[in-house]
Amino acid sequence: MNPDVNNYGKKCAELLERVRSKHPLIHHLTNYVVMNDTANLTLAFGASPVMAHAKEEVAEMVSMAGALVLNPGTLSADWVDSMLEAGKKANELQVPIIYDPVGVGATHFRNETGKKFLKNLQLSIIRGNSGEMGALAGMGGVVKGVDSVEGVKDPARVCSLLARNNRCVAVITGKRDILSDGQHVIGVDNGNAMLSHITGTGCMATSAIAVFKAVEEDSLLAAGAALAIYGLASEIAAKTASGPGTLRVGLMDAVYNLTPEEVEKGVRIVELETV
Amino acid sequence: MNPDVNNYGKKCAELLERVRSKHPLIHHLTNYVVMNDTANLTLAFGASPVMAHAKEEVAEMVSMAGALVLNPGTLSADWVDSMLEAGKKANELQVPIIYDPVGVGATHFRNETGKKFLKNLQLSIIRGNSGEMGALAGMGGVVKGVDSVEGVKDPARVCSLLARNNRCVAVITGKRDILSDGQHVIGVDNGNAMLSHITGTGCMATSAIAVFKAVEEDSLLAAGAALAIYGLASEIAAKTASGPGTLRVGLMDAVYNLTPEEVEKGVRIVELETV
Amino acid sequence: MNPDVNNYGKKCAELLERVRSKHPLIHHLTNYVVMNDTANLTLAFGASPVMAHAKEEVAEMVSMAGALVLNPGTLSADWVDSMLEAGKKANELQVPIIYDPVGVGATHFRNETGKKFLKNLQLSIIRGNSGEMGALAGMGGVVKGVDSVEGVKDPARVCSLLARNNRCVAVITGKRDILSDGQHVIGVDNGNAMLSHITGTGCMATSAIAVFKAVEEDSLLAAGAALAIYGLASEIAAKTASGPGTLRVGLMDAVYNLTPEEVEKGVRIVELETV
Repeated sequence: MNPDVNNYGKKCAELLERVRSKHPLIHHLTNYVVMNDTANLTLAFGASPVMAHAKEEVAEMVSMAGALVLNPGTLSADWVDSMLEAGKKANELQVPIIYDPVGVGATHFRNETGKKFLKNLQLSIIRGNSGEMGALAGMGGVVKGVDSVEGVKDPARVCSLLARNNRCVAVITGKRDILSDGQHVIGVDNGNAMLSHITGTGCMATSAIAVFKAVEEDSLLAAGAALAIYGLASEIAAKTASGPGTLRVGLMDAVYNLTPEEVEKGVRIVELETV
Repeated sequence: MNPDVNNYGKKCAELLERVRSKHPLIHHLTNYVVMNDTANLTLAFGASPVMAHAKEEVAEMVSMAGALVLNPGTLSADWVDSMLEAGKKANELQVPIIYDPVGVGATHFRNETGKKFLKNLQLSIIRGNSGEMGALAGMGGVVKGVDSVEGVKDPARVCSLLARNNRCVAVITGKRDILSDGQHVIGVDNGNAMLSHITGTGCMATSAIAVFKAVEEDSLLAAGAALAIYGLASEIAAKTASGPGTLRVGLMDAVYNLTPEEVEKGVRIVELETV
Repeated sequence: MNPDVNNYGKKCAELLERVRSKHPLIHHLTNYVVMNDTANLTLAFGASPVMAHAKEEVAEMVSMAGALVLNPGTLSADWVDSMLEAGKKANELQVPIIYDPVGVGATHFRNETGKKFLKNLQLSIIRGNSGEMGALAGMGGVVKGVDSVEGVKDPARVCSLLARNNRCVAVITGKRDILSDGQHVIGVDNGNAMLSHITGTGCMATSAIAVFKAVEEDSLLAAGAALAIYGLASEIAAKTASGPGTLRVGLMDAVYNLTPEEVEKGVRIVELETV
């Protein structure tokens, strides 16, 4: 298997430079826990974050944005309404929506919210952990709180089906990230295991995907590049980190300092069997 | 006074290993300021945090949890309602509740909320600073904002009475932490003074207590071990910190890296006079 | 131009010591993204932060405070109401209000909120970026999300007019910060360009201003000293930072460790032409 068969290295490097030159606005309706980290990651990539959830302004705000993140990690009924309103406007204006089904599988409220999003919005990319994505697809996976305690058996199949059924790209992040647009399946092997001891690293992955989707039409490429570059930065940060505290800080530095050369050499994206 | 009369060193080391092997889910309804830090601390200990406050899901979420944290630091009426609902379900299912009376003594709204919690819920452990706990007990203590500007004169007595009246363990954190179950009083001498220049270190102490209570029936031991281990980690972090910024980051690393041997040697828990 | 014509060095050093000895309470109604950072910055300066937004308690809380921060960065209708209520009580009690018009210029809701604040409250100091302050003054400036994408041509004039029309001090932060009380204009040259890659550095500047305003009657001096000292700390932190992650952490350490001597030598405040 040749990871560079599709020139992912060059493509990722080019995309990072595109983000840095265009610095797209990424409109987030996201959870309280990670707002600071996802805003800082978005800035470290060279993009511009805005967090805005009021019904009075979401439609206006999303009209300026390059991508919309819907992350109901600390959801309440009124925030879900605002997310739907922002999402509908995003669809109308063809602003891509990136959805993070945080904790789907854990409670009925989260499950119902996930169904509402799938039914009422045309999502571009969905990213979750194995349990969440399995629960969203109705194909297994056990979620406790916001953690996957039992993943799905065949993540490629779950992603492919979710992607086909919702005409989007579906992403399960884990040791190997699995991505599918319903036809192709790719894997991303960048990352560091200690990320699982930092809150919101999944949410940050979702924001990273939004940053790259804002400058790239091809959702599979955008998501793959985002995860590979984000994962690569975590590998670099892990070299000098003493634990999750310093890793989290170093991750921002590493994203900010990444060179196109490092990206070209460091990303590990592989083509997997088409399903 | 022999700090190891009760083998606290060994007990604390064993409890930390228990947390790391069981990684209990800690359901938080907590304040906006500290959500990220308390989630990261919970993860650094090896437990799993979830922040969820919607009335639609709190009862379902708490049923999966090993402990429930109620921290109304940035309270509003609807969050207080959700906290009561989560608390009632926790009582029904015997999920222990750890309550942090942030800012009680500062405003009527916070005082009334504290009274509601004491009246309607069976709390396992209450932790606050000297002013807050004095105000909660109606025994003095002056609070300005969320800081204790005048502590109670006899913290052991305040803790004992609060514990007896509410059939729980009461904890006043400070230079020496004082804990009582109404009969016994213990003190914890681990910690670092610079913690008071970091926001939410009290809230983090509360989350640490919840993490240990989730794996230990004896509330006095659980709270004592949590504070001793958390304080020990702050001592280790302080050795290389240059100020509150690096201390806060190093604290997460230190918690994550603690070995059973360090814990066994480093915790300083003392038996105080029974009152 | 002699930067020390007004003894700013000595005055700033004296003000920092005043903050550290009085540790004033700074009541914040601020946005979710920055609550942790602004609380930590307030503590690093030696002041005491409290975040409280409930209608049931804002009036009572602000009565204890040395200054009130209104920062509607993640605004909703009910938070705006609470801000107005807190502000009215602050005016009644002569607690100074510091207003941060986050994202004014981006949406109608933010513009209307800004107008409400100017109309209904007597503000002491307003601080924003060039686009926000231009939009607030109705004098140009383009805002996308919460970033200024096109600044005003003559910041001194915009600040002077805003100050005169609202009987306050107006501040535009940027490479050179511009401050005016309607008669005098001063500039602050401390700071570091990498701050723009960290979320909430503007919000932190606003909190810094509130900290100093709480101990100093002269709003122009308080705001100038706050920005100079905050900027100086960022310069010190930048010397050892590897990127925005370590800069953000180092900033807290630097603020905490600043000596009066460093402040006296390091602040760069200049008198500009009176307009």
